[in-house]
Amino acid sequence: MTDRSPTPNPFDWLDAHAARRTAAGLRRWLRHRVSDDPVLDLASNDYLGLARHPEVAEAVAAAAKEWGAGSTGSRLVTGSTTVHRDLEAAAAAHVGAEAGLVFSSGYLANLGAVTALAGPGTLIVSDARNHASLVDACRLSRARVEIVPHLDVAAVENTLAVRTEERALVITDGVFSVDGAIAPVAELLTVARRHGAGLLVDEAHALGVVGEGGRGTVHAAGLAGAPDVVVTSVLSKSLGSQGGLVLGPARVIEHLVDTARSFIFDTGLAPATAAGALAALRLLAGHPELATGVRDRAREISAIARSLGLDSPEPHGAVAAVLVGEAEAAVAAADLCLSLGVRVGCFRPPSVPDGISRLRVTARADLTDADVERARAALAAVAARLNSQA
Amino acid sequence: MTDRSPTPNPFDWLDAHAARRTAAGLRRWLRHRVSDDPVLDLASNDYLGLARHPEVAEAVAAAAKEWGAGSTGSRLVTGSTTVHRDLEAAAAAHVGAEAGLVFSSGYLANLGAVTALAGPGTLIVSDARNHASLVDACRLSRARVEIVPHLDVAAVENTLAVRTEERALVITDGVFSVDGAIAPVAELLTVARRHGAGLLVDEAHALGVVGEGGRGTVHAAGLAGAPDVVVTSVLSKSLGSQGGLVLGPARVIEHLVDTARSFIFDTGLAPATAAGALAALRLLAGHPELATGVRDRAREISAIARSLGLDSPEPHGAVAAVLVGEAEAAVAAADLCLSLGVRVGCFRPPSVPDGISRLRVTARADLTDADVERARAALAAVAARLNSQA
Ligand SMILES: Cc1ncc(COP(=O)(O)O)c(C=O)c1O
Ligand SMILES: Cc1ncc(COP(=O)(O)O)c(C=O)c1O
Repeated sequence: MTDRSPTPNPFDWLDAHAARRTAAGLRRWLRHRVSDDPVLDLASNDYLGLARHPEVAEAVAAAAKEWGAGSTGSRLVTGSTTVHRDLEAAAAAHVGAEAGLVFSSGYLANLGAVTALAGPGTLIVSDARNHASLVDACRLSRARVEIVPHLDVAAVENTLAVRTEERALVITDGVFSVDGAIAPVAELLTVARRHGAGLLVDEAHALGVVGEGGRGTVHAAGLAGAPDVVVTSVLSKSLGSQGGLVLGPARVIEHLVDTARSFIFDTGLAPATAAGALAALRLLAGHPELATGVRDRAREISAIARSLGLDSPEPHGAVAAVLVGEAEAAVAAADLCLSLGVRVGCFRPPSVPDGISRLRVTARADLTDADVERARAALAAVAARLNSQA
Repeated sequence: MTDRSPTPNPFDWLDAHAARRTAAGLRRWLRHRVSDDPVLDLASNDYLGLARHPEVAEAVAAAAKEWGAGSTGSRLVTGSTTVHRDLEAAAAAHVGAEAGLVFSSGYLANLGAVTALAGPGTLIVSDARNHASLVDACRLSRARVEIVPHLDVAAVENTLAVRTEERALVITDGVFSVDGAIAPVAELLTVARRHGAGLLVDEAHALGVVGEGGRGTVHAAGLAGAPDVVVTSVLSKSLGSQGGLVLGPARVIEHLVDTARSFIFDTGLAPATAAGALAALRLLAGHPELATGVRDRAREISAIARSLGLDSPEPHGAVAAVLVGEAEAAVAAADLCLSLGVRVGCFRPPSVPDGISRLRVTARADLTDADVERARAALAAVAARLNSQA
């Protein structure tokens, strides 16, 4: 080394921060799944059970042998393949958009779309519970960002009405993953139009789940192909794969190809991964009952939770929430389920505000009745534990 | 639709912007590769030729069948597998770091590492030519960011010396992809230590290329495992796959698991993609001559360019640059190469400043002598074209 190791070390402050998180019950540990895991998965975002569908896995394997592992470069250099093109066309067709663009993740799709469409001189009006990637996108855009209360269309209108900026963009999740709410996209678009704003809807949790054939909230509202709506979505949830999508007017997509930094300066999605997503999308297109299937299962699980005395709002999408309270109690409840062979998710700060930590129980279209009975047993144990502590 | 389509449309401004880019020769179009493309690839970042290596492709295919297509969730929920764990251990061991963390892209690894290590109350000192993802990371961090001239250690020191913030982080690419320069990491760390700052080095273009066994610039400088150095890197270039890495002290990695938004709120890398990267890393570890091979080929191609009268600085890494000048001339030169069966990259604004657009000719460890002769023929045509216009 050029020098002695430094004292104090510039990362010493991390220890105090870690101690504070430990005291607050906010440490996170990676648990590494094995491939033959016998645990029942009610935690993933594989809403349609397509991640391990034989046709999807086979499509990935075949494409890996055809194309190799990676795309080898930016989509603008060597990273675009005919698989990306076919996936973009199929995804746009599925939701009724004019054009589509595949990113390497949903996170980067949101960063790219928002920063390319809004900058200094633009007002962004953003729902208070939008996904972290949209929040980061707003910060990165350098636009003026106004956060409005969750699902509050009047607040959106008021904010748009008093703006001084010429341009404005309203941003919302289609389905909010934490509380499962569906955004009032038709009302938001009416208000946006009245005030000359565009609308961007993140359909990450809606694609494959909401609306006829899982075409999402924008399609369900009759707004497919609207010239002033941009949809972002992911390949990583219902499509069981990885990657992000932007779907919308061709001129928006062309603008992203020219200017979206997270598209231009990022390696293209691996062709094999894109092929997996395309295979999943074709299964979804051919089996619209997958979308209704997962919604039915989510409502069933939520009803079971309520019948056990747990607090679980009726789900609109794939996720049944079970409200617990404090972060540590939620973690303990999730651990209890896992000890009973059922993996559920757990939302705690910073994903949710303090005091409303919760279990996130994800349905899948391919759950069997026996799976649902295992879920019931785990939720019953959670209910017993919470009652004994009350 | 809830309303008539709007006039004017909120995206009308895109047309004027597109027209301006067209006039400036800055439009970008996606070209979709086919899998049996006969063109010689001198444009990708597949520096070691591992993307299509049979063992790598087979590892992806086998893992897809074992795990399915996607990781199904955040690394903190269902998205971590034993493949991720093994890849993290192998990558950390390869560069001599204490611990490692796999992200879904190098872009998000940089966003996550920088925003988690620097925030309000931190000074970031960032090289003027750092990669776009580091630039975005600085913006997103809300730290005070000072941009220093390219490779200017004295400017780094002066900036650190006069800061008012307690904490500081120096950020640099290890190998700069546009000009091929290698960062003076030892000098930067000396200066950082003198002023109580940490150092973050992005080894995206160095891993697999620079130093013994392609362990990167930090290792080559004798700084492997330094307690105040964080390395970021990618799985998408020499390792022929997709994804990002952060490698460094265990407490830094634990801090990222707890706080890095682009880790927590992002779907884990697809296990099959991680398996491909792991297979490539094992090939690299077993074949240190791959790293010297690509560097030798890059110098050979650059020497050929100079022998043809072209302006090509001696490369230190995998990329030979051929300076052309205006953006349109660079695009025309790249098109000329392509018409001769050789795909080269092209850097133009905003990747490089105006007037120094260039061809980016990437070597690969697996180039044959016949491939190099094809490269010579293409560069000869470029030289003839430029001479006839001069
Ligand atoms: C609403 C929403 N948008 C975007 C993302 C990011 O997508 P990805 O994980 O594919 O990066 C997620 C979750 O991961 C999400 O829940
Ligand atoms: C220096 C550098 N860092 C980070 C990245 C981003 O990595 P990825 O493409 O894997 O997102 C790139 C290029 O893509 C790069 O050149």
